[in-house]
Amino acid sequence: MRTTVGIIGAGPAGLLLARLLHDAGIDSVVLESRDRVYVEHRQRAGILEQGTVDVLRAAGAGERMDREGLRHDGMELRFARRRHRVDFPGLTGGRSVMVYAQTEVCKDLIALQLKEGGPLLFEAEALAVEGADGDRPRVRFRHQGREEVLECDYVAGCDGFWGVSRAAVPASLARVSERTYPFGWLGILAEVPPSHDELVYARHDRGFALLSMRSPSVSRLYLQVPADTDAAAWSDEEIWDELERRLETDDDWTLNRGPITQKSVTPMRSYVHEPMRHGRLFLAGDAAHIVPPTGAKGLNLAVGDVVTLARALTHEKETGSAELLDAYSATCLRRVWQAERFSYDMTTMLHRASDATSFDDGLQLAALDRIASSRAAGTDLAEGYTGFPIG
Amino acid sequence: MRTTVGIIGAGPAGLLLARLLHDAGIDSVVLESRDRVYVEHRQRAGILEQGTVDVLRAAGAGERMDREGLRHDGMELRFARRRHRVDFPGLTGGRSVMVYAQTEVCKDLIALQLKEGGPLLFEAEALAVEGADGDRPRVRFRHQGREEVLECDYVAGCDGFWGVSRAAVPASLARVSERTYPFGWLGILAEVPPSHDELVYARHDRGFALLSMRSPSVSRLYLQVPADTDAAAWSDEEIWDELERRLETDDDWTLNRGPITQKSVTPMRSYVHEPMRHGRLFLAGDAAHIVPPTGAKGLNLAVGDVVTLARALTHEKETGSAELLDAYSATCLRRVWQAERFSYDMTTMLHRASDATSFDDGLQLAALDRIASSRAAGTDLAEGYTGFPIG
Repeated sequence: MRTTVGIIGAGPAGLLLARLLHDAGIDSVVLESRDRVYVEHRQRAGILEQGTVDVLRAAGAGERMDREGLRHDGMELRFARRRHRVDFPGLTGGRSVMVYAQTEVCKDLIALQLKEGGPLLFEAEALAVEGADGDRPRVRFRHQGREEVLECDYVAGCDGFWGVSRAAVPASLARVSERTYPFGWLGILAEVPPSHDELVYARHDRGFALLSMRSPSVSRLYLQVPADTDAAAWSDEEIWDELERRLETDDDWTLNRGPITQKSVTPMRSYVHEPMRHGRLFLAGDAAHIVPPTGAKGLNLAVGDVVTLARALTHEKETGSAELLDAYSATCLRRVWQAERFSYDMTTMLHRASDATSFDDGLQLAALDRIASSRAAGTDLAEGYTGFPIG
Repeated sequence: MRTTVGIIGAGPAGLLLARLLHDAGIDSVVLESRDRVYVEHRQRAGILEQGTVDVLRAAGAGERMDREGLRHDGMELRFARRRHRVDFPGLTGGRSVMVYAQTEVCKDLIALQLKEGGPLLFEAEALAVEGADGDRPRVRFRHQGREEVLECDYVAGCDGFWGVSRAAVPASLARVSERTYPFGWLGILAEVPPSHDELVYARHDRGFALLSMRSPSVSRLYLQVPADTDAAAWSDEEIWDELERRLETDDDWTLNRGPITQKSVTPMRSYVHEPMRHGRLFLAGDAAHIVPPTGAKGLNLAVGDVVTLARALTHEKETGSAELLDAYSATCLRRVWQAERFSYDMTTMLHRASDATSFDDGLQLAALDRIASSRAAGTDLAEGYTGFPIG
């Protein structure tokens, strides 16, 4: 089997890359280790930055998003029983975000790919990327019980943090930057209308809480918990009680409760692998970097990576120049590090470590007070939240 | 001995408070444990915020400052061999800072006080504040070999971090927030024109460096060093060599060397004592809070405290209402915590811990890159540097 760009992974990075390359007239094959049902149902992020929304629309994948997604023009910070709204378009000159689940983005892109795009193989498990530093890289993979080889001009490693692509970069050439956190997020899906029409990020002495939503009838809520927490150890009532405590305000806001349909704990990690390119292998999305979920940057970073890669491959096809391909890693990493910084800062500002001192508390409240009282600080946050520029 | 306001300490906080009270027709006595020569020669900070400059002018203490001080309309951030200028008035709508040493501010205020003000006793060592929670607080002090008592309506504790005032607040009523840092600043004074006309804050893999100045012919420079460093262990040449390495740029900037006339190590600490008031005792400046020197907030915080206190005492005198006195601690602490946050953030962004990871490095460079590329982030920094509003 042979193609121009071998894409490993049918998450949002791989699927969007295939779509962008298709639009540019560049062949690709997508290999996905899981089956379609799994890919279309794994719960992930749900906030699309302005730039991501623009890219999906331009790629022809925005129709259902524009119909079913919820445009959000702000978010709320809650701390010391106070509420402060961050006005995205007012602070950024018109930018906003869209609440539309990653799993829906994937469904839309899969449907497009199967209808108009090149091969997308499910249950095709990549085993190794070989010859990345030569002219003819190959992806060995297992499909329908057989080992096969995909020969390519380029390989795009879009197979996430646990994928095989990154292993093809010799450790001696890589710099890994990493941070783990002593807490995770206990996340629930609940069949109840959201208790606020925008996201609420709450800093509380008992720990962070986030009120989010999937639709006008489905709430998505999170609690900071110790990293080793078993989600099953929390009863539904305990979860609602704790959310209520952490989201408390001085006014008469109330939390709507409803049936919890899903419960899981997300670990939190910061991770950057540099460079993001080795020869003809290009890493994109979680294969190269991880952010903690605070600020919802993961999916949006992946989109920036593949937009940059698609542009570079298109430029190479049209002009014969590898200039943009050569710049791929540095171009992506500048944005990646901004998102890493942003996610780390938001995490640090809102989560309470079990050994937090009163100085740590004072810093958090001062940072929130600053955002609430300075247009410059509010703008800095709103620009970061609605998205750093791509490329 | 009896007065309305007993002021402990003739640093900038105590001296300015005495001056502001004098202008409002309120009696005070200032007790200073050291002699005049010592007070007029201890080297401290040298950057006055816009608000501090305005206050000193309004207090009639700005004449020599305006003649000899250096107005700075910006500063430079140096990192990864790059140089980025932060334009203070351009970003803040006209605000700037003044380079004028704290020791000169003290000389000016002492001269005014001795000429026009109430008693200012040198070598008058405060021993204890008594009866702070009653109607008639007293300061016991030793002067010319004798123990004496200063009876007051109010006591202002302006005696710095090591003074006795803070001890008069019962520990059970206080919350102390503290952070120490594993590094300090090795500072030098050198008889050589500054190598740049504005301050240069440099982040370098070898550690932080700061290029500052006292006058057009006297440079003040600092190097991050381990906290337990003995200044004498560094030869002059080693200091210049290390400054040169950390201040390196990609262009042809050069460091002027000259005779080093003073050399010392400043420890770094963050500290906040809450509340800042106990009964009729009001803590101001370093007696209540310490910031690391990065960002030069210490003196400027002290000025904000005593302006707030003088306003409150004046209000009480004119209206009989204790409303502003009752609000003193909360009013000051909001600004104090902003300065603590600012100083901590600048310290964290620019200093390199000996156990720094590549993730820490990445965060620092991303934060600097953000300031250099976002007007909002630059404005946030410039507003903080030129000063948070008083009161």
